[in-house]
Amino acid sequence: MFALELKIKTNDNFSRLSESYLFSEIAKRVKARAEADPSAKIIRLGIGDVTLPLAPAVTGAMEAAVREMGVRETFRGYAPEYGYDFLREAISAHYKRSGVDVPASAVYASDGAKCDCGNIVDIFGDNEILIPDPVYPVYLDSNVMAGRRVTLLPTSEATGFLPTTEGLSGEGYIVYLCSPGNPTGAAFTKDELGDWVAFARRTGSLLIFDSAYEAFVTEDGVPRSVYEIDGAAECAVEICSLSKSAGFTGTRCGWCVIPHGIKAGGTPLFKLWERRQATKFNGIPYVVQRGAEAALLPEGRRQSLESVAYYRKNAAVIGDALRRRGVFFTGGVNSPYVWMKCPGGLTSWEFFDLLLDRAAVVGTPGAGFGRCGEGYFRLTAFGSAEATEEAVGRLEKLL
Amino acid sequence: MFALELKIKTNDNFSRLSESYLFSEIAKRVKARAEADPSAKIIRLGIGDVTLPLAPAVTGAMEAAVREMGVRETFRGYAPEYGYDFLREAISAHYKRSGVDVPASAVYASDGAKCDCGNIVDIFGDNEILIPDPVYPVYLDSNVMAGRRVTLLPTSEATGFLPTTEGLSGEGYIVYLCSPGNPTGAAFTKDELGDWVAFARRTGSLLIFDSAYEAFVTEDGVPRSVYEIDGAAECAVEICSLSKSAGFTGTRCGWCVIPHGIKAGGTPLFKLWERRQATKFNGIPYVVQRGAEAALLPEGRRQSLESVAYYRKNAAVIGDALRRRGVFFTGGVNSPYVWMKCPGGLTSWEFFDLLLDRAAVVGTPGAGFGRCGEGYFRLTAFGSAEATEEAVGRLEKLL
Repeated sequence: MFALELKIKTNDNFSRLSESYLFSEIAKRVKARAEADPSAKIIRLGIGDVTLPLAPAVTGAMEAAVREMGVRETFRGYAPEYGYDFLREAISAHYKRSGVDVPASAVYASDGAKCDCGNIVDIFGDNEILIPDPVYPVYLDSNVMAGRRVTLLPTSEATGFLPTTEGLSGEGYIVYLCSPGNPTGAAFTKDELGDWVAFARRTGSLLIFDSAYEAFVTEDGVPRSVYEIDGAAECAVEICSLSKSAGFTGTRCGWCVIPHGIKAGGTPLFKLWERRQATKFNGIPYVVQRGAEAALLPEGRRQSLESVAYYRKNAAVIGDALRRRGVFFTGGVNSPYVWMKCPGGLTSWEFFDLLLDRAAVVGTPGAGFGRCGEGYFRLTAFGSAEATEEAVGRLEKLL
Repeated sequence: MFALELKIKTNDNFSRLSESYLFSEIAKRVKARAEADPSAKIIRLGIGDVTLPLAPAVTGAMEAAVREMGVRETFRGYAPEYGYDFLREAISAHYKRSGVDVPASAVYASDGAKCDCGNIVDIFGDNEILIPDPVYPVYLDSNVMAGRRVTLLPTSEATGFLPTTEGLSGEGYIVYLCSPGNPTGAAFTKDELGDWVAFARRTGSLLIFDSAYEAFVTEDGVPRSVYEIDGAAECAVEICSLSKSAGFTGTRCGWCVIPHGIKAGGTPLFKLWERRQATKFNGIPYVVQRGAEAALLPEGRRQSLESVAYYRKNAAVIGDALRRRGVFFTGGVNSPYVWMKCPGGLTSWEFFDLLLDRAAVVGTPGAGFGRCGEGYFRLTAFGSAEATEEAVGRLEKLL
């Protein structure tokens, strides 16, 4: 067979991405376990996706919007690239309820935080990128794809798995922060996040703050938004999403906030983002925007937070068991994630195998999220309450 | 007021983008005209957006999907990044009905052709990019943003405003083609498109074929898909969308086809796209995917094509008037666009003003789509039949 080989150049940087076998390897081992013992009731505490349905206020708004789209007089064509005003204003009002002033004009609606995290790379030049380790892989991979210089910020038990500014002496960094964090569930206090804002201002760096898990915050003094910190509006972009707060993982709505006061190279950053989005993006579906608006208005928010409370309770159940057993962990509060130390000095994958073989419980090896994740393990709270209780009972026996 | 200036570097290439004032300038002049004579019944034949509602089969499927999302047992979280199998298979079946073999595994669903056109730039290195002039601005701007070398392919009356391979002697190009075209409405015959496929194979170039207007094709011998040409599956990517064929401009669903036989630098191209999408994209809403599936299944397609027929009739009405007046134009058939020569040697903007002042009809100056558009003018078929008839009557009197 004749196979043509084109003479175009592909993006070399892709060869520098490390292949992730994390979730396929997990699936393989779980499958082998299930086949070895078909009677075992395997419980998955590795799920990183919501399982409870959309709130009635949300589906009601979406159904009404679908009907509008079927009638000539109320049909909507292209949406504004940055979101309809009704949605941008609902997001602004959402911030206002937490006492944070984010004008609607600084809010850019999108099809999710992952997309924003990946796409925002387009508007930057060649900067040194700081990314915590362990981390949500999108920050790293999207910068590697663009050929950027990435420096990992090691975290550990000593810092509660939160990155600190210690030892950083350069300037003009782009820093990714996620709080409450994925995969660690660790959340900054106001003081800790304040250190990062002060660092950014002092060194002319930009923070990209991922607040996708803000709805899980319950503790006083833990910021839900970077803009709770004075001075952040000139040095921090915030990326958020309804995926975890309103069950939108399969419905797709997020946003980024680019305050109009952020400037670099003489240009307001938001102008670059607006040009990027107007060129390479065409807005999100009207039906989704109406659902998102409903999820942010008081009734929909209240209903959605019932699901968050359900997950949060699962997280607390896992955390309580670890506390009883004296196992170090972060998260469990302010987060759907529990990040535990593997017992007996086991590696992440050794503990994975032990937990799967002896307790038929599936989690996620921490080493899959970065070198500093080795020896740690992620459990998630998105399962049912019954399954979580059962899994935690088995886990506790094992520890 | 203290204003912080960050020390990060932004993407320099953005400064090389030309600011487009096209649509804001049109809006300004139309507003001035309306204010000068409030009694004038201004008719817009410049609309590039559909106006008829979604088909009943589509809204029915979307309403059912919304209800599924509101029930725990049928709720869906993260969708597969490349689209649900049911959608990829519906797209594959859609091609099969036109006699084209596109396997579902080569279909990547997305939130629209604009996004795919912009995002696919990520997977390429530094190649010479060939883009027809005049052109849909996204091809150009997304490549300029990425710092790519762009060469415009001039088109003219002599080539029916279609780009040809004449005079091209290099190799390893990336070539953007749109047929039926925007803004010109011009469509390749099978032979003409065959020339481009032969050129791509001979020179190791990649074609990026935008078939967003395929549903408007009525003439025999005018391909709806690049894969109607033998050999295209090793050198052509196709980008398509439901925006114009099923009224999805505000609902967002498109796809790109990357045949698994396309290779460059030893790598199958689809692997780079899969990695790009898995990293920076999170799939499209379940509700939209069900609507898109319905739009492609026979009943929904039949209903959607009724709207296409309605627009097509408007285009024919415009084209017939120009033919009667002996005015050169492309499109009017196989397309919702009519690309006419300005009468009496007028420039695009001179004719815009004349048409607006004397006939109260709004169109789009061709110069806004590239240098070769100067002296030409775009009229669109997305208005109502009544308004189109009325506008055409006024236009004919003027010519």
